[in-house]
Amino acid sequence: MTTDLPVITDVRLTPILIADPPLLNLSGVHQPYTPRLIVELVTDGGIVGLGETYGDSAYLTRAHELARELVGLPVSAINTIGGLGRAESTLIDATPAASGLRGALTTDKIRLSVVSAFEVAAFDALGKHLGVPVHTLLGGKVRDRVEYSGYLFYKWAEHPDGDVPADPWGAALDPDGIVALARKFLVHGGFRSFKLKGGVFAPDEEIAAIKALAQAFPGAPLRLDPNGGWSLPTALRVAEELTGIVEYLEDPTATVEDMAEVHRRSGIPLATNMIVTSLAEVKPTFDLNAVQIVLSDHHFWGGLQATRDLAATCRAYGKGLSMHSNTHLGISLAAMTHVAATVPNLAYACDTHYPWQSEDIITDRFTFTAGALDVPDLPGLGVNLNHDTLARLHERWTTMPAMRERDDTAALRRAEARIHASRSEHNWTTAP
Amino acid sequence: MTTDLPVITDVRLTPILIADPPLLNLSGVHQPYTPRLIVELVTDGGIVGLGETYGDSAYLTRAHELARELVGLPVSAINTIGGLGRAESTLIDATPAASGLRGALTTDKIRLSVVSAFEVAAFDALGKHLGVPVHTLLGGKVRDRVEYSGYLFYKWAEHPDGDVPADPWGAALDPDGIVALARKFLVHGGFRSFKLKGGVFAPDEEIAAIKALAQAFPGAPLRLDPNGGWSLPTALRVAEELTGIVEYLEDPTATVEDMAEVHRRSGIPLATNMIVTSLAEVKPTFDLNAVQIVLSDHHFWGGLQATRDLAATCRAYGKGLSMHSNTHLGISLAAMTHVAATVPNLAYACDTHYPWQSEDIITDRFTFTAGALDVPDLPGLGVNLNHDTLARLHERWTTMPAMRERDDTAALRRAEARIHASRSEHNWTTAP
Repeated sequence: MTTDLPVITDVRLTPILIADPPLLNLSGVHQPYTPRLIVELVTDGGIVGLGETYGDSAYLTRAHELARELVGLPVSAINTIGGLGRAESTLIDATPAASGLRGALTTDKIRLSVVSAFEVAAFDALGKHLGVPVHTLLGGKVRDRVEYSGYLFYKWAEHPDGDVPADPWGAALDPDGIVALARKFLVHGGFRSFKLKGGVFAPDEEIAAIKALAQAFPGAPLRLDPNGGWSLPTALRVAEELTGIVEYLEDPTATVEDMAEVHRRSGIPLATNMIVTSLAEVKPTFDLNAVQIVLSDHHFWGGLQATRDLAATCRAYGKGLSMHSNTHLGISLAAMTHVAATVPNLAYACDTHYPWQSEDIITDRFTFTAGALDVPDLPGLGVNLNHDTLARLHERWTTMPAMRERDDTAALRRAEARIHASRSEHNWTTAP
Repeated sequence: MTTDLPVITDVRLTPILIADPPLLNLSGVHQPYTPRLIVELVTDGGIVGLGETYGDSAYLTRAHELARELVGLPVSAINTIGGLGRAESTLIDATPAASGLRGALTTDKIRLSVVSAFEVAAFDALGKHLGVPVHTLLGGKVRDRVEYSGYLFYKWAEHPDGDVPADPWGAALDPDGIVALARKFLVHGGFRSFKLKGGVFAPDEEIAAIKALAQAFPGAPLRLDPNGGWSLPTALRVAEELTGIVEYLEDPTATVEDMAEVHRRSGIPLATNMIVTSLAEVKPTFDLNAVQIVLSDHHFWGGLQATRDLAATCRAYGKGLSMHSNTHLGISLAAMTHVAATVPNLAYACDTHYPWQSEDIITDRFTFTAGALDVPDLPGLGVNLNHDTLARLHERWTTMPAMRERDDTAALRRAEARIHASRSEHNWTTAP
């Protein structure tokens, strides 16, 4: 006979603020705290499923709206949850950088990022109920370990904001600093490949940093990602300098047309988490061969099944697949690791911000060894919530309204006002 | 703690011959018996998972080879099973008709049809073990009923072969006969949409049959499928006659280029189960917009997950999705129904030969009502094997070696030799 499957009776949404180091990117600098939303699907059988997503107010509002529709559904209704609230999508912000480094922002992308956390939480609850890991519910792992890259950022030694948490990583503002940071990542988790977040300093400086990494770590796969911040001439110049040195350039330019032109003229493989972040963006981008590698992100695509769907589309079109990361905690890292373990064509190390996060709301933090994580084999995601930490980080959220929206640009403006720093040019304005 | 998942200890492969009516198609006529292969995955916990696929010798040989690799795997290793035996694919037969009306035949297509049965059997065993229906393991059903079309064939009243089973359907050899057959399908299972297998008589006769159906069943979705048997001028002529009358034409011509041309010049929606039946065929066909609707078939694509992967690719490319059928029994019908229930973008009634099969190896045959099936909610596929029937149909297989390969052409040759029948022309050889 059929097991009665748990039914969702309540959805707890807990916005939190987590400490974040002063990491630099095209838009500015990470604020001392960044918002995340922790989702708990409570079921009639007492099982609670966990999910995690963006915590900015637009996401939080949408989560509260959609949470009402979850109540009464069985946790097995994964396909239904992915479609909750689907409607005509409207453009919110066409500027990639301003909309959080994820390409143009639409109402449907916000919806998908919300349902991704619900879907992950449903998978977690279903796995716990059935006594199987989430990867079993995705067809079973095809690898026992998932490789991650060491995600390097230019960074300041400390936030200029005053009384905020310090971090142990120190400053990294030139090639030597980036190599030193990579060595710390090697000690920290044995990372064997490195990604540098670029778009911060002049391209020549970033090229020099990548070349310094190549010299310091011969044979290590390397990537450079300026979040679409370069002009076409700049991107072509960087491509010329780094062909054969990076495994791919990530979003060197911001438009489909310029990306296609960069690849056509340079031949360098291009990856993206900005011009292909939703189904509607697949065909126009693939048709122009504007990318060769798509960076999946279950938060962007609407969950773990949607991530597998993207992987299938990439297989059909001969596109490579890797995985994007934004600031996240252990629930999302578990979800990323489960789905990554089940996708046959994930041929690159995944990105993760996780080593930068000093705080987590799970009881046992993940530890990287040899640049990889063991795929959890416990029921569900295999992680548990630390309710005390959750309460403390939520309390921080209630007391710091100014930090509730991630805004790297605002943080930089504040910093500049205080420290009178001036930033380098990102681009040559004419062809070099 | 994690449940120990059942491990495959044995794979029983039982080739059978099932009775089949004298249905006509482009290649010839169905023989009195057609081969199928029944798969039983035996596990250490005593659970047996069921699968079904093509039974011709090439499939049977490959199944015996790959079955050895299954032993020792947990039944949850769905993703691994789908990849068993993957190797460089080689062309076996480029002629669609000769290779069984499924487009060009390759070694990998045979492999995929074999692993599809293994994958379905693994899903069945996993579902039985966990106490959940297969659709739950595919993310949950998004509909409670799956619609099927009434699959009409031109047919003879009886096989010309002599002492073989009769069928209750009678002859259908002209428009009146096809309409009468459709009325029987309406009585039989309440089918609300109809597909006619064409490529048998002159196109004008088949156009007349479709128009007769449209008159007899106003508003019913209709389809005509000559299995790629028409020339480009013929296909264009049929498209002109049937635009607005059929919901789509299925494989009017045999090549990607001609299909693209038919759609470009006529605008009629085209479906296929011949030019897109594997991942490698997706991109070249979609790039030319040679099809608008892909007919999925879990036997072709390598299982239920692969079917969902195809559905995802179709979503990304704005292609419609429907479902193809070849002669099959209740295990495959259950598998088709489970996966169809979970695919959001399955907007057309599925095809099935099932009403034509008078024999089945499951204990309780499926019954269509209002042209649809209830999605099974019992654990696994929700069907049980009738071991007596299986033994009897296998015994038939052992005693009738001449029937072990499906060969509609040979059957027609034999029939023609006996009844001196002559067939009509399929094509206008010049533009009409």
